[in-house]
Amino acid sequence: MKNLKIRKELLEQEKISYAMDHIELPEGGVDCSEGCNPYGFPQACIDVLRNFDPARLGPYPHSPALYDAISDYWKEQIDVERGNILLTDGSISALYIVNNIFDTHNAVVLGVSPQFTDYYMHAGMIGIEYAPYQLEKKNNYKFETDDFLEMHYEEAEEDTAIGKSYNFIYIDNPNNPTGQCIDISDIERIVKEAVKFDITVIIDEAYGDFMPKENSAVTLFAKYPNLIVVRTLSKAFGLAGMRVGYIIAHKNMIACMKKMVNPYMVGELTREIAAEAISHRDHIEKSMADFAAMKCSIRKALGCSEEFPGGDKGRLHLAETLDTNSLMLLYHDDPDIDLSREFLSRGVLVIDGNDFKGLDSSSARVRLPVISEFPVLLSAIEDINRL
Amino acid sequence: MKNLKIRKELLEQEKISYAMDHIELPEGGVDCSEGCNPYGFPQACIDVLRNFDPARLGPYPHSPALYDAISDYWKEQIDVERGNILLTDGSISALYIVNNIFDTHNAVVLGVSPQFTDYYMHAGMIGIEYAPYQLEKKNNYKFETDDFLEMHYEEAEEDTAIGKSYNFIYIDNPNNPTGQCIDISDIERIVKEAVKFDITVIIDEAYGDFMPKENSAVTLFAKYPNLIVVRTLSKAFGLAGMRVGYIIAHKNMIACMKKMVNPYMVGELTREIAAEAISHRDHIEKSMADFAAMKCSIRKALGCSEEFPGGDKGRLHLAETLDTNSLMLLYHDDPDIDLSREFLSRGVLVIDGNDFKGLDSSSARVRLPVISEFPVLLSAIEDINRL
Repeated sequence: MKNLKIRKELLEQEKISYAMDHIELPEGGVDCSEGCNPYGFPQACIDVLRNFDPARLGPYPHSPALYDAISDYWKEQIDVERGNILLTDGSISALYIVNNIFDTHNAVVLGVSPQFTDYYMHAGMIGIEYAPYQLEKKNNYKFETDDFLEMHYEEAEEDTAIGKSYNFIYIDNPNNPTGQCIDISDIERIVKEAVKFDITVIIDEAYGDFMPKENSAVTLFAKYPNLIVVRTLSKAFGLAGMRVGYIIAHKNMIACMKKMVNPYMVGELTREIAAEAISHRDHIEKSMADFAAMKCSIRKALGCSEEFPGGDKGRLHLAETLDTNSLMLLYHDDPDIDLSREFLSRGVLVIDGNDFKGLDSSSARVRLPVISEFPVLLSAIEDINRL
Repeated sequence: MKNLKIRKELLEQEKISYAMDHIELPEGGVDCSEGCNPYGFPQACIDVLRNFDPARLGPYPHSPALYDAISDYWKEQIDVERGNILLTDGSISALYIVNNIFDTHNAVVLGVSPQFTDYYMHAGMIGIEYAPYQLEKKNNYKFETDDFLEMHYEEAEEDTAIGKSYNFIYIDNPNNPTGQCIDISDIERIVKEAVKFDITVIIDEAYGDFMPKENSAVTLFAKYPNLIVVRTLSKAFGLAGMRVGYIIAHKNMIACMKKMVNPYMVGELTREIAAEAISHRDHIEKSMADFAAMKCSIRKALGCSEEFPGGDKGRLHLAETLDTNSLMLLYHDDPDIDLSREFLSRGVLVIDGNDFKGLDSSSARVRLPVISEFPVLLSAIEDINRL
């Protein structure tokens, strides 16, 4: 293997990922691990599945249904034409495509730590250097746009032109694992600064349907040729098992990507089901209301307040988060605790903080369950808060 | 765009592909363009679709069904374990993954011309140099293993070590567009030569189910760590609309690829339907018998013989081909003819030879239709043969 001229990164680096081959949930336990919507997908998708003409599985996929549905989804915010859309196999594949449009030799991406692990793992594997801005525990892991831009300026000073340091910026908004949301005005400030230095900004909105549409970077794509927005149907729309996502950007940017991707991405049936799902925004509104109610109870249990945003009623804390989002990060005062193990022993499967750069096992990512299963999670939280 | 540090190849190179956004087939015409099986997929797939539990669309895909079905498909030839398999979004995506495991700077791939266009287009877009061995019209486009290895030796002499010239070898077997098949003993000779120089050999068997299983390079993977075999369900198994393919290789090689790919490739329903399809090899045998009968009629019409393998009854010729395969290449004596246009004016949609490196518009790729539509194709062939 060593001699086969394979990238040295692939031979030398270990991949860390919280993606699992199969889920090991204890009997009667609550799954708060994978990022899918616990409320599932809009029920109307079932009719599409049942009424689908199987003859359409044969030829290559050509259905325009999903392109039309995406345009329709955004029509109150912005005109999205077919040439602005690239359909992808979930948002992970979208990120792989985006990383690959850059000349990866001597490329550096400015990220945020912690953030979506599989993103920077892939960047590293294809030779891109990853330089993250660190969210600080002492700030309750809150993203501060001024600090982020300062990091960017510091580098600029060193090299006299930031363009030499950073080739692109990757931000997940809302952030994974904390679930916090950067205001669109701050996103615009970053994109505007970046364009001055010819830096492309990738905004990964995998969890973006859990924030108001007006806060999406999709609303900005027409103004900034250096902006790439990544979306998926796997999270809020509950279709992780179907594998479908999309990229929105300037036509020139999409045309570049199309030169190096599978021309038949996303199967025919998947396009139809996804198109149906995306027309049911109301489905998500209901999930969002439940998540907000659950996070409210958690805030109360942990004693979160303006003065102590992470909570001061015990030893467990809630990192900065958007209440309508399914994700959150919990962290414990005991640096030696294995937080995901503590949850598992109380019947709750979560993601170990150690699976994210910049975190360790005293923290854990928790994806909220359906509200009927919430008591199990809340009682585990209350219990661990006292440890 | 120019300043955004995007790969220069993406900005400068045009992509050539015969993949179409939609098919423009004249009223009552016969589609002989896309490479899917005109006989479609095994009917049992419809039951899987109808009986699928829609709740499984929600969570990330974890079904082992397709891994098991692939092992089962090959069990008479060779033991294929789960660690030898990478599921992919069709075989195009498989090729993109394979190209990307190599350090693409200063990499050169030895190919065959003509061959699958999207392969070398992608190689070029990510900076890999493509150096093809040319199939010659005067040899009826027949692949000659000795000539191919000689090209390889010539380069070796120049550089004293072929390893410096070629990083890997890409062969589609059966070849697209001619549909010809290289004997497995010749494939093994090539792989054996290549391993001496640490060259990886990629055998793309997209149309491989149309040849006997014993001729597949899958039978060799356990012996050669430098062998990667790519397969798809889009062609013989008729599931192009579902997007599913797979790679078979040594475990170490698959492990390398897994470090840089989507951990959730191929959706849950797709895995189930594909697993069902692959258990119906009999479905393909029937298609193969019909293709052989159709090619026999074409050979007769063109006057193919041992002395004139391409035919001497007129001005149209059939390139070297495997009769049980759906694909073939036709070429005309008139260098100025637009062959695909001539077919289209006779109600037959084919792929323009110009979409392949090493060919021009006096040739065309024809994918055989179902036998009931064959008279339209045969009459067009007979007609054009007299032009």
